[in-house]
Amino acid sequence: MIVDRDPLFERGRKNLSRIRRIIAVAAGKGGVGKSVVSASLALTLSERGRNVGLLDLDVHGPSIPDILHAKGELVATKEGLKPLFVHGIKVMSTGLLIEDNPLPTKGEDKRMLISFLVGLTNWGDLDYLVMDLPPGTGDETIWVLRALRGLKNAGVLVVTTPSVLALSVVKRLLNMLKDEKVRIIGLVENMAYFNCEGKEYRPFGSFSEELVREFGLKMMASLPIDPSLEQAIYEGRPPHESSEELKSAFYRLCEAIESSWGE
Amino acid sequence: MIVDRDPLFERGRKNLSRIRRIIAVAAGKGGVGKSVVSASLALTLSERGRNVGLLDLDVHGPSIPDILHAKGELVATKEGLKPLFVHGIKVMSTGLLIEDNPLPTKGEDKRMLISFLVGLTNWGDLDYLVMDLPPGTGDETIWVLRALRGLKNAGVLVVTTPSVLALSVVKRLLNMLKDEKVRIIGLVENMAYFNCEGKEYRPFGSFSEELVREFGLKMMASLPIDPSLEQAIYEGRPPHESSEELKSAFYRLCEAIESSWGE
Repeated sequence: MIVDRDPLFERGRKNLSRIRRIIAVAAGKGGVGKSVVSASLALTLSERGRNVGLLDLDVHGPSIPDILHAKGELVATKEGLKPLFVHGIKVMSTGLLIEDNPLPTKGEDKRMLISFLVGLTNWGDLDYLVMDLPPGTGDETIWVLRALRGLKNAGVLVVTTPSVLALSVVKRLLNMLKDEKVRIIGLVENMAYFNCEGKEYRPFGSFSEELVREFGLKMMASLPIDPSLEQAIYEGRPPHESSEELKSAFYRLCEAIESSWGE
Repeated sequence: MIVDRDPLFERGRKNLSRIRRIIAVAAGKGGVGKSVVSASLALTLSERGRNVGLLDLDVHGPSIPDILHAKGELVATKEGLKPLFVHGIKVMSTGLLIEDNPLPTKGEDKRMLISFLVGLTNWGDLDYLVMDLPPGTGDETIWVLRALRGLKNAGVLVVTTPSVLALSVVKRLLNMLKDEKVRIIGLVENMAYFNCEGKEYRPFGSFSEELVREFGLKMMASLPIDPSLEQAIYEGRPPHESSEELKSAFYRLCEAIESSWGE
């Protein structure tokens, strides 16, 4: 159920309107690397001298704590919930609240968890807040988009793989973003190619070109499949630093995002 | 909300108990290729002379109609809903019912859609029913597992990628399967390796070995990333026939599943 008015929700809207820029990272379905892209984007913005927060709202299976090896007790003060500080960025995740407990399965509980984090996290001063949205086009995603509705400082970055099977789900997401009147920054094509012995292979095809054409989207980045990424995450190193190729791809993505805001 | 008794649900249980073997294909999260594995498995079983049905219960984003290019009007008779007949197998999907309409977002509606297809599809005589479950460990998945609970003819095949980030979600799924007391057939590692110039690369790591060790699971198959798969799906050819490598991998998987039932 979508309820448009509640005090926590309103507080969340106010919270978000105070942040200079919000990048909501969305995907038509799970498993396309949305969370790794969110974390790497936040870390790269921070390396570029920005004050950055990362808010993981994936209530289906929050993976930001796994990716950043972020653990610790959450502290609540009169000013709100204090985000963790990991690799130079402020981090808040639904996963930090529920930890090893079962995920909430009811819509109402998921919505509450999202409202709670959006409304009560005390970010302090932020240049950028990167939001890792729930995957897909369910109620939870709509709920977060409603919190962003009409905010001039917010835009959505859509992550997909180039696979033909991603097409219909991404189209559904793009139509939903239009309906909710949220600005779309552009498309990130993840797992686009694999560099093998100096040659580039595209094991999942090139079907995202259809999205660029049909929706007039900007292709913001085409990210490689990087075998060293898994090991970096396993060892708790920042994911985008796993290879020079990935690191520079994220630098270019940050530049493209910043210039899309006219900087 | 999980309700254990309703007439449609009971009819579904009776429906399922009449089928010789049921293979429910599950995944901890989306994007691991669960639907492509389900479809290829069903088609391979059929090529081996079995009478096969494929039931797509993914209410988050049913992709079986996209994979098999299955389209057509559903016909309901006094005996129930008639599945489509595609590439030699009987096919039913939530996607056939809702087509281009928005997906149901409320839990209760998703549950109804599942009960409807499980309870009312008239499969006729079947050797195997392959069920493509919703991804993850949400209410919908639990709802389907309840329909399978205690059925001696049913088992769950868990699909994952070898990625480190799949570990925690698959563990959550495996614990849920134990709680629901459903037989686990084993694990399928999808997108395991990429054959490049005669050499095998594992771009997503080898982290599923931990699952085999920790849960005492059988590794039923290790499937390649096959660049020709995308084009086959795009053109409407059966996905497992995209390469000899994939085709023979699915033959071996079928053999392993059949022998797990003592055949």
